[in-house]
This record gives sequence, structure tokens and C-alpha cells, in this order.
Amino acid sequence: MRAEFVNPFLASLINVLKTMATMDIQPQKPRLKKDEIARGDVSGLIGMVGKQTRGSMSITFEENLALEIMNKMLGERPNGLNEEVTDMVGEITNMVTGGAKRILAEGGFDFDMATPVVVSGRGHTIRHKCEGSIIIMPFTSEWGNAFIEICFE
Amino acid sequence: MRAEFVNPFLASLINVLKTMATMDIQPQKPRLKKDEIARGDVSGLIGMVGKQTRGSMSITFEENLALEIMNKMLGERPNGLNEEVTDMVGEITNMVTGGAKRILAEGGFDFDMATPVVVSGRGHTIRHKCEGSIIIMPFTSEWGNAFIEICFE
Repeated sequence: MRAEFVNPFLASLINVLKTMATMDIQPQKPRLKKDEIARGDVSGLIGMVGKQTRGSMSITFEENLALEIMNKMLGERPNGLNEEVTDMVGEITNMVTGGAKRILAEGGFDFDMATPVVVSGRGHTIRHKCEGSIIIMPFTSEWGNAFIEICFE
Repeated sequence: MRAEFVNPFLASLINVLKTMATMDIQPQKPRLKKDEIARGDVSGLIGMVGKQTRGSMSITFEENLALEIMNKMLGERPNGLNEEVTDMVGEITNMVTGGAKRILAEGGFDFDMATPVVVSGRGHTIRHKCEGSIIIMPFTSEWGNAFIEICFE
């Protein structure tokens, strides 16, 4: 797992939230995930397959942050994690991975994306079952936290 | 989403549980997932990417069934959904998808698998964000229920 894989995902999430929801979130220091477990309420997950590697990526949001993204995008705040929210999380997952894919492809690192899956459930945790190191990128905001996790074999 | 995609996954899960845990589970009728939502406590998810298609697969277990699989495999029942259980669910996810992949490849339908991701959280739900139809395959057992969901674009 090379460090240059981190920034394309980190920059893509910041960019997607700024563009879609005029929202600023603050990246914290990315780190290797060892015993640490990110906990959240709604997560988008996507598989990646390339000639050189394969892996997985997840974006986990606390519920209040996900609802505030909807509010800023649509001018209306949903009551809970309904299908509109999970559609939005799936779309963000696609956009962040697609953005990172384009940047990484310029460096000669190619992969194809599977379709995203969105998990809802209060305080769920995610474990990437991948031979490589797992990198966790925490983000904070006034509405709650988010985490990206990536792992490439 | 062609119906011949269903049986390879269904047969692989039955076969994996019989082989690994000498456990019989009963498949119920597969159906198109529309408004229905499968709920469970631990799920393995995997992305699939091929020349003809891409998609995602999930296997969701109720906690008691997952713990009983561990009990039958190892002779000891864990207290809860610890990392040994999520490793086992990730392994089952790999084996079921690998088994289905081999059967489908014989019919000329090829895909590569991403690495699996395992989600833990009581009563979580999963939504496959994929353009194709989602097929849900319920399984029952005396220890609890399981569900496979697949979607190919």
C-alpha cells in the first residue's frame, strides 16, 4: 500500500462535498489502521480490480453529517437514513473512487470499479479483508465525522 | 440479470457451509428484491468486475447463525462478532463468490473479484447500488437466517 494512493481519495472527497454540497470538511492525518475501528451510521463500499492489484474502499458517515449533506444539496433535511440518503452515499462513493481512479491512472496505476453497496445501521463497523495495509483517513466537520478506508493488495 | 446467475451462488453457499461447518441450511425461493430489505448482524460484501459486466454480492447472517458456524467449525462458540467471526465471514464471501465464478466461467461469463469487506452492526441493512435487478436468496436454519443478494449490471 503506497502512500501516494492516499491523497487522490482524500482530495476527491473534499472536492465532491465542496462541489455537491458547498460543504467544507477537515482532513485529519491519514494513518495505518491497526486495531482502530471506525464506527458510523451509513457507509458506501466499492470493490476495485486491476491488472496490478485489487482492493476495496469505504466511506463511512455519521448520520448527522449525511443528513446535513442532503440538506445542503437539496435544501431539505431527511428525517433519517432513507433511500434518498443511501442513493447519495452510493453516488459519493462512485464519484470519490472515480476521481481517485483518474488521478492514479495518470501515474500508470489502473483499476476498474465494481458497483457500490451502501450499508445503513447505527454504529456499524467495517473491516477490509485484504492482504495489504489498510489506510484510514478521518475527516471532521461541525456536523459530524467521516472516514475513508482503503486497502490494495 | 439472468436467472442462471442465481444457482451458482446459492449452491456455493450451501456447499461451503456443509464442507466447512457440516451445517445444512435451507434455501428459500430466490426473488427480485424490490422494497424488501434484508436485515442482519454481520455481512460480507464483494465487488465483481468483468468485460461484460460489473456488480456486487453480499451475504448477510444473523448473529446467532454466524456464531454457530464458528462453533461447528472450531468447537468453540465466540461471545460476539469479534475479528475471528468477521475473518470467517470474509472467507465465506470469498469462497462463495469464487465457487460461483468458476461455474459461471464455464458458461463463458467471466469476472474478477475484488477483496471482501465485512460489516458488523446489529440489524444493519444493505442496498446494492447497481443498474441491474437485485436478486435476494433467503436461507433458513434452526440457528437463524442468512441472505445472499447479487446484482450485475
